Amino acid sequence: MRAVDIIIRKRDGGTLDHDEIAFFVHGVVSHTIPEYQAAALLMAIVLRGFTADETLWLTDAMVRTGVRVDLGYLPGVKVDKHSTGGVGDKTSLVLAPLAAACGVLVPMMSGRGLGHTGGTLDKLESIPGFRVGLSLDELKAALQAVGCAMVGQTAEVAPADRILYALRDVTGTVESLPLICASIMSKKIAEGVDALVLDVKTGAGALLKSPAESRALAESLVALGTASGVRTEAVMTDMEGPLGCQVGNALEVIECLEVLKGRGPSDLVALSVELTSRMLVLGGQALDQASAEQKVRDAITSGDGLDRFRRIIERQGGDPRVVDDYSRLPSAPHVRRVTASRAGFVTALDAQLVGRASMVLGAGRDRVEDAVDPAVGVSILAKPGTEVHAGDPILELHYRTESALEAAWPMATSAVALGDTPPIIGPIVLEHFS
Amino acid sequence: MRAVDIIIRKRDGGTLDHDEIAFFVHGVVSHTIPEYQAAALLMAIVLRGFTADETLWLTDAMVRTGVRVDLGYLPGVKVDKHSTGGVGDKTSLVLAPLAAACGVLVPMMSGRGLGHTGGTLDKLESIPGFRVGLSLDELKAALQAVGCAMVGQTAEVAPADRILYALRDVTGTVESLPLICASIMSKKIAEGVDALVLDVKTGAGALLKSPAESRALAESLVALGTASGVRTEAVMTDMEGPLGCQVGNALEVIECLEVLKGRGPSDLVALSVELTSRMLVLGGQALDQASAEQKVRDAITSGDGLDRFRRIIERQGGDPRVVDDYSRLPSAPHVRRVTASRAGFVTALDAQLVGRASMVLGAGRDRVEDAVDPAVGVSILAKPGTEVHAGDPILELHYRTESALEAAWPMATSAVALGDTPPIIGPIVLEHFS
Repeated sequence: MRAVDIIIRKRDGGTLDHDEIAFFVHGVVSHTIPEYQAAALLMAIVLRGFTADETLWLTDAMVRTGVRVDLGYLPGVKVDKHSTGGVGDKTSLVLAPLAAACGVLVPMMSGRGLGHTGGTLDKLESIPGFRVGLSLDELKAALQAVGCAMVGQTAEVAPADRILYALRDVTGTVESLPLICASIMSKKIAEGVDALVLDVKTGAGALLKSPAESRALAESLVALGTASGVRTEAVMTDMEGPLGCQVGNALEVIECLEVLKGRGPSDLVALSVELTSRMLVLGGQALDQASAEQKVRDAITSGDGLDRFRRIIERQGGDPRVVDDYSRLPSAPHVRRVTASRAGFVTALDAQLVGRASMVLGAGRDRVEDAVDPAVGVSILAKPGTEVHAGDPILELHYRTESALEAAWPMATSAVALGDTPPIIGPIVLEHFS
Repeated sequence: MRAVDIIIRKRDGGTLDHDEIAFFVHGVVSHTIPEYQAAALLMAIVLRGFTADETLWLTDAMVRTGVRVDLGYLPGVKVDKHSTGGVGDKTSLVLAPLAAACGVLVPMMSGRGLGHTGGTLDKLESIPGFRVGLSLDELKAALQAVGCAMVGQTAEVAPADRILYALRDVTGTVESLPLICASIMSKKIAEGVDALVLDVKTGAGALLKSPAESRALAESLVALGTASGVRTEAVMTDMEGPLGCQVGNALEVIECLEVLKGRGPSDLVALSVELTSRMLVLGGQALDQASAEQKVRDAITSGDGLDRFRRIIERQGGDPRVVDDYSRLPSAPHVRRVTASRAGFVTALDAQLVGRASMVLGAGRDRVEDAVDPAVGVSILAKPGTEVHAGDPILELHYRTESALEAAWPMATSAVALGDTPPIIGPIVLEHFS
């Protein structure tokens, strides 16, 4: 089998078989196939596509380059959640403790933020002492002790994905539905979960901007998970504007704690409850979505979710006192407000621009190797639909240096749209796929 | 300017500008752009195409990575010929001395054989002592002394082409009209010729099998040459069967000497006269094609062409006695004949299969770094149209080892088609483009 023949078949619109795809993936990981051949095949896949079978075989081959974690000896259904990434999308920090409090085992493996979207690991690391780099044994012990662990992908999980993603990033081959699907699902399947809830974002702040593309991604992910033996559901959710009112690592941790205390913003609460409820049903802790939602809301009201988060933090080396004392979290030295230039209604907040502003302030990264500042970010003081007078505050930029503020300022100001009539606010959850 | 943005623009079907293409080509040659990015762009070009402008800019950028040879101080028009490659295609060895004998300056830079097609340099090197590796100064001196030099491309000429071709070969990106055009023309333009005659092959033994594809290539090459300031004409010629009766390096040299002695096979003579005549017209040595043809035929009859070939051989270090004594050329130790299995007519000889058989015997190479055997090859004893009795010889395989013969035998036997009625033999020159 020669790599160049595989490239040529795909270039000419043909279909690759299981062995050819496995040969390629293992060749890339073992460096027996050079990066330039991998790059040529990736571009051919972007432009010629992959069938559902090819995508499944790619995912399977990627899983097989590493370990598939075995959690089968732990009683109960293991359920994770994955989001395609958004601005202010912090639901993981709410739903992991809530689902665990309701009896679901949650071995959550997350990523870091890139570009204008944040990452769960960066948010968790704003909690002093919190360790996301658990070993597999530590992860299993944490699962047994507190029903949940929130960690980064270990090196053993789908190493092909790291290699291929790094190559896609520099060869213009990121934007491909089958490659995106295989990247997401190879990691989730290798984690050893029984079931998975996917949050596929759509809109200005999402990876895929149009509902049609996001729908295709959701359907493909569900089919791929199901074919791989993982019960998979997806919801398509709105990402025109930021989720909740806080964007930035420590700021988002505080907002999550507020949700667990029953005081969160309505869009974030609604989505968190929706996703956690689906995890409960898949995890066998509720018979239907309605009873699951009640159980989740009860876990908020009773404080069980908050208590579980405290135990997770403690288990992973973090300072649990942050739960009750936000001053123990990093905060930015300076604040500057974007105010309304006229009276009227906030009609829209552009998620992409708010996300870029937060990134430029230091909360996110442009390159994988960049460090993030846990303290900085953007607070939303007036969500779309709010009536404002001229001079009323709309956004609050938490910043460290004047140069960062200068770079973020034009993005933040142009993210705000004002108008004379209130906008129609649609639901946060748009569609459900199973 | 970032390479990844250029890749993405082409991936999405956009058009690159002059600076972007120059940035890319120079980046590849200077290794500031890694091979995986070059491979991704090449695949995007194969699948998305290049406009005429993009192809021109690519060609220009490739020329500029090396020297553009300056032959302007030599009086007279410098004319070269290039073939897209065929089986038994040896016209260069006939037309270079003939055109020089008729007063045209011929600075001929050729390539080596690859796959089932032969290369001019390999054929010349079967002449004992013949040096194709002249320096630029030696080439200029040879041109002044004998009006012709037949050499390999020097390292100074379009280095981008060597780098890109090596990468295309292993990434499935060879089959692209604009990339093929830029590869051919960058070298020819850098040679410093004033005019160029192109022989674009079509049929079973050609790079492009269909007349439509070959026509597109011919038109694109002529447009590209003209836009680059080189007067360029092309002929599309038949390559269903091998050209002439000899395939293999020393065998083909002998056949060329026979043509120059007025005894060549009709198809090879016709094509050699056609191409040389076009060179004469472009080179200002004849007013029209008819008077040019007469002049070329006179140069054969008078022996001027043969004499010029003798002087070229001598000038480049070869043994000129081969012209009169073929036993001074290498010959294979063994011969085995393919005979007619029945009475009838030879209806076809598959050029690709004859070429593969010759390659497998050792006359050609599968990889650029392979060595060739100058002695081996295939002689055609009965061209299509010949009436044969059962047992009459059709092909003669000149071989060195039994294992090579065994590998070549099935290709050679299946290359021959016999039938009850004589085939219609079409013309060798199918179309002309200028």
